[in-house]
Amino acid sequence: MHPRVFSFTLQAADGAARAGVFQTPHGPLFTPVFAPVGTQGTVKAVTPRDLVDLGASLILANTYHLYLRPGDELIRGLGGLHTFMAWDGPILTDSGGFQVWSLSAINQIDDEGVTFRSHLDGSLHRLTPERSMAIQQNLGADIIMCFDECTTPFDHQYNRIALERTHRWAERCRAAWTNPDRQALFGIVQGGIYDDLRRESARTLVGMDFPGYAIGGLSVGESKEDMHRILETVTPLLPEDKPRYLMGVGTIPDLINGVARGIDIFDCALPTRVARHGAALTRQGQITIRNATYTRDPAPVEEGCDCYTCQHFSRAYLRHLINSQEILAHILLSIHNLRALIRLAGDMRAAILEGRFTSFAAETLANYHSPKDEQGEPQ
Amino acid sequence: MHPRVFSFTLQAADGAARAGVFQTPHGPLFTPVFAPVGTQGTVKAVTPRDLVDLGASLILANTYHLYLRPGDELIRGLGGLHTFMAWDGPILTDSGGFQVWSLSAINQIDDEGVTFRSHLDGSLHRLTPERSMAIQQNLGADIIMCFDECTTPFDHQYNRIALERTHRWAERCRAAWTNPDRQALFGIVQGGIYDDLRRESARTLVGMDFPGYAIGGLSVGESKEDMHRILETVTPLLPEDKPRYLMGVGTIPDLINGVARGIDIFDCALPTRVARHGAALTRQGQITIRNATYTRDPAPVEEGCDCYTCQHFSRAYLRHLINSQEILAHILLSIHNLRALIRLAGDMRAAILEGRFTSFAAETLANYHSPKDEQGEPQ
Repeated sequence: MHPRVFSFTLQAADGAARAGVFQTPHGPLFTPVFAPVGTQGTVKAVTPRDLVDLGASLILANTYHLYLRPGDELIRGLGGLHTFMAWDGPILTDSGGFQVWSLSAINQIDDEGVTFRSHLDGSLHRLTPERSMAIQQNLGADIIMCFDECTTPFDHQYNRIALERTHRWAERCRAAWTNPDRQALFGIVQGGIYDDLRRESARTLVGMDFPGYAIGGLSVGESKEDMHRILETVTPLLPEDKPRYLMGVGTIPDLINGVARGIDIFDCALPTRVARHGAALTRQGQITIRNATYTRDPAPVEEGCDCYTCQHFSRAYLRHLINSQEILAHILLSIHNLRALIRLAGDMRAAILEGRFTSFAAETLANYHSPKDEQGEPQ
Repeated sequence: MHPRVFSFTLQAADGAARAGVFQTPHGPLFTPVFAPVGTQGTVKAVTPRDLVDLGASLILANTYHLYLRPGDELIRGLGGLHTFMAWDGPILTDSGGFQVWSLSAINQIDDEGVTFRSHLDGSLHRLTPERSMAIQQNLGADIIMCFDECTTPFDHQYNRIALERTHRWAERCRAAWTNPDRQALFGIVQGGIYDDLRRESARTLVGMDFPGYAIGGLSVGESKEDMHRILETVTPLLPEDKPRYLMGVGTIPDLINGVARGIDIFDCALPTRVARHGAALTRQGQITIRNATYTRDPAPVEEGCDCYTCQHFSRAYLRHLINSQEILAHILLSIHNLRALIRLAGDMRAAILEGRFTSFAAETLANYHSPKDEQGEPQ
């Protein structure tokens, strides 16, 4: 039987960790999955065919950026985002809410929506739940997100006000969602670092019955303890048969800790951003390839990595490219860093399916050194 | 019978135009051939596997740049340039002479060699014919070049002095050339825009019996008429059974006019440089994809082009990438522009083998509009 579009099949669980398949119009997503970020309709410095080669399945694009430039109507006129960026696999677009909060020059929030100035040219714009949905329909991603209010996670009183607005907006997004066979609309659990608000948010959104649920407002300055506790609070309240997406999270320990607490989908701009700063993500921790210690190092970026970069180039070559300000440095480090997280997601999936996730997670976390521990000469 | 290394087999001639095969330790070169330039050990913004995919066979790297950074000894220690940059095909290195003349802060020429300051840090360096050969041996390219004196092409008196030095240096390079089974040393015909000097240079170098001959000092400010006349003067004096390389030349009309006058090998940084400025090489002329006229254009960069870029992306998408300052713009336009010249070389080869080069050249030149004719809105 052909699987129903947007059905999520749980294939195995190992503690809270899950392995599953989420069916989309552009093919299945095998979870846990890490999605590279293609903010402006391109994963920075990587061609779509290199993304396929490094095992990417889901790509995220940013509604805020594409709405401002080149414009969602232009993209629709050229056949939608899949055709525009030549990506045949599943795409997820966010709602624009986070970028309005974090990037735009001015924003005024009222119960109807948000008024903001473009970070590009200062022009005045307005987003509402209905506008966000219309833009996301023009872009045509497989997974679209409810328009929510993003805010500081550390003010209980304001988070309650913002949360109630986010829930009303989720209802309006659901009402404006007209093509559930082509686009899956995910609700976003908010509530800052407060367990009571997070619980309330999860219950309210589950009551609206979305095809998937995201957890937003994390990795924005809170402690790892807060992040982990909130995941442990929220995921048990989410339905087992729907995918769970932790937004904007993407270090190696964060992915492991997220999967251990029941998360299925991740995205983060970290791997490509770190690459443009001349550094590499590895299971042992982040390494700064720019450092003089790698001047004559014939080793690949990461021993045992199967990516194109590690299979063909030395750290010494990459360091030379970085020092020479060559674009190929960005390309090759982006390929490695994306592969590092996608390979990790795949390894976690295999461990879950084989019932050995707990030991895999413990060993991998024990071997990992956070970037601040990094040894090496100063940059 | 296995072909002898560095043998050149002339397969067909059509007027002065030639199709042949040059055997190198890293595989055969089918001529006419266009070589992408990888100045610092990378063709800017293009991975080696994308170079293979777009049909590149020969890559040029710059001795001056690699000597200064990361250093030829370092590259030798890592297995040589082929291993360092992960390019398994043939590589050609220049001698450093042209960059010493065009890039370095100060240079003093004497009969022994050239003293110059690095364009990177002002440090003092000295190149001699013997040093250039030693550096090129460390790099390990398949084709290496004699160290010559580059100068303005418009001063007959000085060109005579420079030419005599270039010929003495060619003798010294030949004497310092110790591995003719692994590296083919090409002599470089100089002499500015002066037919008498060019003839003298060709005869002198042919007398030294090199495995190939380059024509240097063109495309440095002289008229097209001068360039064409000099090619017509020089190539008939070169042996039929040796490849002929026109250095640093790479527009579409220049390639056609070069092949029509008996040239086999070309290199130029133009395709990747033009790409980084948001423009594309096409058989109809150069087009500035950045222009507003392409905002909603669903067409590929060039109709009929078989490159990855033209097979998957619209001009509208590329314009969006350029406007958004995305690295993928450089990648995709570099792929197209390199393919444009490599495809042209291949089409010329086919036309020569089929005896229809004259009409191919006439038609292609008639359809081509030089960049200054380009229509479109100002950038």
